[in-house]
Amino acid sequence: MRTQADAGPGAFSTCGLVTLTTDFGLADPYVGIVHGVILGASPRARIVDLCHAIPPQDVARASFFLAHARAYFPPGTVHVAVVDPGVGSRRRILLAIDQGQAFLAPDNGLLGPVLSSTARVRELDVARFALPRASRTFHGRDVFAPAAAALVNGLDALGVGTGPALDFERTELPRAVVDGDTGEARVLFADRYGNVVLGVRAEDLGDDPSRWSVEVRGRSLRVLGTYADAAPREALALVDSFGSLEIAVRDGNAAETFGLGSGDRVTLRRIR
Amino acid sequence: MRTQADAGPGAFSTCGLVTLTTDFGLADPYVGIVHGVILGASPRARIVDLCHAIPPQDVARASFFLAHARAYFPPGTVHVAVVDPGVGSRRRILLAIDQGQAFLAPDNGLLGPVLSSTARVRELDVARFALPRASRTFHGRDVFAPAAAALVNGLDALGVGTGPALDFERTELPRAVVDGDTGEARVLFADRYGNVVLGVRAEDLGDDPSRWSVEVRGRSLRVLGTYADAAPREALALVDSFGSLEIAVRDGNAAETFGLGSGDRVTLRRIR
Amino acid sequence: MRTQADAGPGAFSTCGLVTLTTDFGLADPYVGIVHGVILGASPRARIVDLCHAIPPQDVARASFFLAHARAYFPPGTVHVAVVDPGVGSRRRILLAIDQGQAFLAPDNGLLGPVLSSTARVRELDVARFALPRASRTFHGRDVFAPAAAALVNGLDALGVGTGPALDFERTELPRAVVDGDTGEARVLFADRYGNVVLGVRAEDLGDDPSRWSVEVRGRSLRVLGTYADAAPREALALVDSFGSLEIAVRDGNAAETFGLGSGDRVTLRRIR
Repeated sequence: MRTQADAGPGAFSTCGLVTLTTDFGLADPYVGIVHGVILGASPRARIVDLCHAIPPQDVARASFFLAHARAYFPPGTVHVAVVDPGVGSRRRILLAIDQGQAFLAPDNGLLGPVLSSTARVRELDVARFALPRASRTFHGRDVFAPAAAALVNGLDALGVGTGPALDFERTELPRAVVDGDTGEARVLFADRYGNVVLGVRAEDLGDDPSRWSVEVRGRSLRVLGTYADAAPREALALVDSFGSLEIAVRDGNAAETFGLGSGDRVTLRRIR
Repeated sequence: MRTQADAGPGAFSTCGLVTLTTDFGLADPYVGIVHGVILGASPRARIVDLCHAIPPQDVARASFFLAHARAYFPPGTVHVAVVDPGVGSRRRILLAIDQGQAFLAPDNGLLGPVLSSTARVRELDVARFALPRASRTFHGRDVFAPAAAALVNGLDALGVGTGPALDFERTELPRAVVDGDTGEARVLFADRYGNVVLGVRAEDLGDDPSRWSVEVRGRSLRVLGTYADAAPREALALVDSFGSLEIAVRDGNAAETFGLGSGDRVTLRRIR
Repeated sequence: MRTQADAGPGAFSTCGLVTLTTDFGLADPYVGIVHGVILGASPRARIVDLCHAIPPQDVARASFFLAHARAYFPPGTVHVAVVDPGVGSRRRILLAIDQGQAFLAPDNGLLGPVLSSTARVRELDVARFALPRASRTFHGRDVFAPAAAALVNGLDALGVGTGPALDFERTELPRAVVDGDTGEARVLFADRYGNVVLGVRAEDLGDDPSRWSVEVRGRSLRVLGTYADAAPREALALVDSFGSLEIAVRDGNAAETFGLGSGDRVTLRRIR
């Protein structure tokens, strides 16, 4: 059993799970090779591919996915996120312990929206973990994978850093700007179904999101409870499964219907 | 060892395997999150991603894939299929035990072609398994995953339902309509190689499929034994590895060559 | 501990890992079914999907990926590679033991660049491993998967062949042709990032690759150390993480920028 002390902000006790969030894609063997390095060094590791389809270099997308996904993994999970335009430069790699989980990511803002205010963050001592003859272009394989395996193998996570990294790059997920009865937000991305995820948290809209509408391309969309509350092919807004506001078309594709993509603006309006 | 009694139609004894068949795609973290929920609740589970590229809402495709794949998994496997246009509505979720395997899917016809006539089917008691604060839009994460984990953990599968669900939505895989020496069939889908899978079972053509040809776009294609029986770039028909009739081009792409897609018609003709 | 005898060229002792390299794609359930057959026969197997996005029938791509990836897997790994235009014909299936790892692949040149000169190669006795009613079109499922499971289960790898297969199809990875101060090479493929991998090994360029430039579309690109050594959006060449020469655009897509694809030629020139 975990004790109260174990559950402190800096405590980490592996459960064997490692998640991977990268922009590596699946067209090349990069992901499989990372699996090989982790499993070779830590045969008990179990690896979950959280997402490898992050658009190249899209650090914000990786942040959003990991920030929303981490709650669905048990304490003791090691989350590895490699979207790393600065690979091979002097950018640091961060090791964070937060609410019983460990995080490895480049110091490029990726972890900003992911970590809680009680996270303990250190710079990873790269030289200690890097594979022999490490490349300057594939740190996922040469640094992140062996460090993740070491965490699964029971490394004292607090001991691996080289002092505090309190000045790591902090970032926030985009939020709606609400002023009285109107607000403005941006499209974060469209998912597989063409559902358009907005930079709006349900709580940005007060107690009752259903009292708001989303104005887009001259249309006004009510916030409903789920897709099936709309008629077939009808457009709607809803609070999605991550607590974000979303535009959808029942049994259809909202991104195509409205021509919406990352960065586009929409207006929020309170219904009277 | 299994006893005769254990092998009855309603018996289920986990082997730890869980398969996932969804239309979630791999562009978003949905699949990885489902892995997290299952592995968090059931660390001994081993998850196989059967297919996540089902076109959105294409229940029939999921049925076809699962119906043909299930025989290649051992007894004790939990098959989870989530293609679920009605998520969040009052549609039921089914739990079936069939030939030693368990199945979880929405009651939308998906399991119709998958289950044998001796399957025991119940409605899942959603309230018993749903995560706290379950969403109305992501039951894969909030209901199916915890229920699958419970089955791996040794839940008495017969005890989880709320009475018989004998009126569940039954469906069949498409079959050829054969009348004497001619028949008609439809294209189900084209696979990765551009091989065009037809709604024709080998047994629809009697004892010797090689005595039939497929008429398509003014061409007549003999049913051969394998791709290599055709000349390079030659078109052929064959009984594929799932026992379905298929149109192929050796070292080529039949879907592109013939402009064939889901729902298109072809004619079957007995060779004299 | 391994003894010297164990480490001989023909020795193989499973670590439970199986890698899969195929052109099956992920749109269909083919990969998941292969997992099912392996895990059904060998519950202790752990499977790594090295790459399933090999373009259909592109044996050379599979060779390149596996040749570069194998070093990142531990001894005792079973590598299964199925890019198999001749499936169902009389082409042989090879079982090789090389430096403590096992390899299963069709005898079509795939293993040529992968194996060392001390590999021991045999023809697989297909009849011994094939599933009952094996198809002539899906040997990944019906032959390779059960053979891989048998290797994980501790089969004596040297005993499974039917005599030597010394005349197996040998092939080499493409190399640069260097003559004094100039050379010529071909594009192998573009990866997920649009980085263009050339058929040039770092050692083809002598001790110091940075003394060479790559001439392409009228431009001359210096060989730098990593992406971040170039200015944003600047084109560069570099030795990539597999030891191959590569053309890249920092934070951009070199394949699109230069219109380069598989088979295109580039010139190498020594800088004076």
